[in-house]
Amino acid sequence: MSPALLCHLSFTRRAMPLSYADMHTTFTIPTSGPGLYEFTRQVAAWVTGDGLLTLLVQHTSASLLIQENADPEVQTDLQNFFHRLVPPTTDPKMAYLTHTYEGPDDMPAHIKSALLPVSLSIPVQNGKMRLGTWQGIYLFEHRTAPHTRQVAAHLSHE
Amino acid sequence: MSPALLCHLSFTRRAMPLSYADMHTTFTIPTSGPGLYEFTRQVAAWVTGDGLLTLLVQHTSASLLIQENADPEVQTDLQNFFHRLVPPTTDPKMAYLTHTYEGPDDMPAHIKSALLPVSLSIPVQNGKMRLGTWQGIYLFEHRTAPHTRQVAAHLSHE
Amino acid sequence: MSPALLCHLSFTRRAMPLSYADMHTTFTIPTSGPGLYEFTRQVAAWVTGDGLLTLLVQHTSASLLIQENADPEVQTDLQNFFHRLVPPTTDPKMAYLTHTYEGPDDMPAHIKSALLPVSLSIPVQNGKMRLGTWQGIYLFEHRTAPHTRQVAAHLSHE
Repeated sequence: MSPALLCHLSFTRRAMPLSYADMHTTFTIPTSGPGLYEFTRQVAAWVTGDGLLTLLVQHTSASLLIQENADPEVQTDLQNFFHRLVPPTTDPKMAYLTHTYEGPDDMPAHIKSALLPVSLSIPVQNGKMRLGTWQGIYLFEHRTAPHTRQVAAHLSHE
Repeated sequence: MSPALLCHLSFTRRAMPLSYADMHTTFTIPTSGPGLYEFTRQVAAWVTGDGLLTLLVQHTSASLLIQENADPEVQTDLQNFFHRLVPPTTDPKMAYLTHTYEGPDDMPAHIKSALLPVSLSIPVQNGKMRLGTWQGIYLFEHRTAPHTRQVAAHLSHE
Repeated sequence: MSPALLCHLSFTRRAMPLSYADMHTTFTIPTSGPGLYEFTRQVAAWVTGDGLLTLLVQHTSASLLIQENADPEVQTDLQNFFHRLVPPTTDPKMAYLTHTYEGPDDMPAHIKSALLPVSLSIPVQNGKMRLGTWQGIYLFEHRTAPHTRQVAAHLSHE
C-alpha cells in the first residue's frame, strides 16, 4: 500500500474516538431510611462496549454493595446484622463514641461506611457488566432521615 | 518530515493495538469448604504489560482477599475470626436472621461477602502486579459444600 | 480534504500520547502508631486529566479508607470501634488466635486489613478526583510500632 492509503486507514480509525472515550456520569438515588436500594438497571442501561466500570459513593454515611437480588430477606438480614454490629450511639455498648452531635445514627453510619465498600469495579464486556447470575448493585443507606445520594460512575474503554 | 512520512509513523503505531487492547478472562477456583484459596500464580501468569488489573468474584457467598501468604496460621485465624463474628444461623445469637432455607451457612456467607472485598484493583507495571512482598490473592470461600467459583478478570492497557 | 491533510491531523493527535499515557507512582506514608493518616492533598497534586485513579496499599497490616475529614472525632471513634471489634491477642476474647509470635497487634492488624479496603478506585475528571465534599483519603495504620507504608498508585487516561 502507498503511504497515502495507510494514512487514510489510520484516519478512519481515529474518527472513532468519541464513541470509545472514557465516560463519566452520576447516579442519583433518593433514600428514605436505612436499607438497600437496588440500582442495577440504571447502571446496566448506561454501560456500553468493552471496558471497566467504576462506581464511587460520594458520601461517608452510605455504602455500595453487590449482593443477592433474588430473595428480599437477604437484604433485611444484612441490614439487621450491621445494625447489631454497630448500634446507635444511644446504645450503652457504644458509650465510648464521641462524635454524637449529628445524631445517634451518624457515627454508626461512618463506621458502616468503613466496613462496606465505598467503590466497586466491574468489568464490562459486549455492553454488559460481568456480574454473576444473582448479583445486583445496591446503595446501602445507613442514615435514618431521607437523603439524596450521589454515585460517581466512570467507564473506561479500550 | 513530509506529511507522507508522518503518516507512516502514525500507522506503525496503529498497527499495534491488538497487543494493547483490554483483556478479559475468568479464573475458575474449585473449593471444598470454608477457607482461603490462593490463586496469585494464575493471575501473575496472565497479566502482561502496563495497566490495571480488576478482579470481581461472581458470587454473593464468597469473597476476594489480599492477605499475607507467608504463614498459613494467618489464614486459619482469619477464617476463625469471621466464623465467630458471623456464626451459622443455628447459633442462638443469630436467631434474628430470616433467610435460613438455603442452610445455616448461607445467610452468614452473604454477610461475610458484604464485609470482605467483592472486587480488587491492582496496578500492573512491566508485566507484574504491584503487590507488596507478602501479599497474595485469595478466594475466601464461605460455604460448607464444595463449589466451583468464578472470578471475572479484566486488564486495561494504556 | 486530501489524504495528506487527513494524515497530518491524525499525526497531530498521535503526538500527544506521552502526556496521556498511564501513570504509576508510589505514595510513602510514615506512621507512628494506630490511627488514620490523611494523604488527600498528595494524591490531588498528582492526578491530572480525565481517567481512573487506583490506590493499593502494599501491606497486610494497614488499610486504605475514604472517610469524613471535617471532624477529627470521627477518626478517633473509627479507630476505637475497630480496636474493640478486633482487640489484641492478649485479650482473653482472642485466645483462639494462633499467629501471635509477631506481637499482640499483628494478627488483629491482618484481620482489620481484611475488614477495611486494600484498594480504592476513584474517577478523575478535569484533573480532580470525583470525591464528595467531606471525603478524604486516609491510610489506616493498624500496628503499634512506627512503619513506613507504601501505597501504589495508578492513573489510567483515556
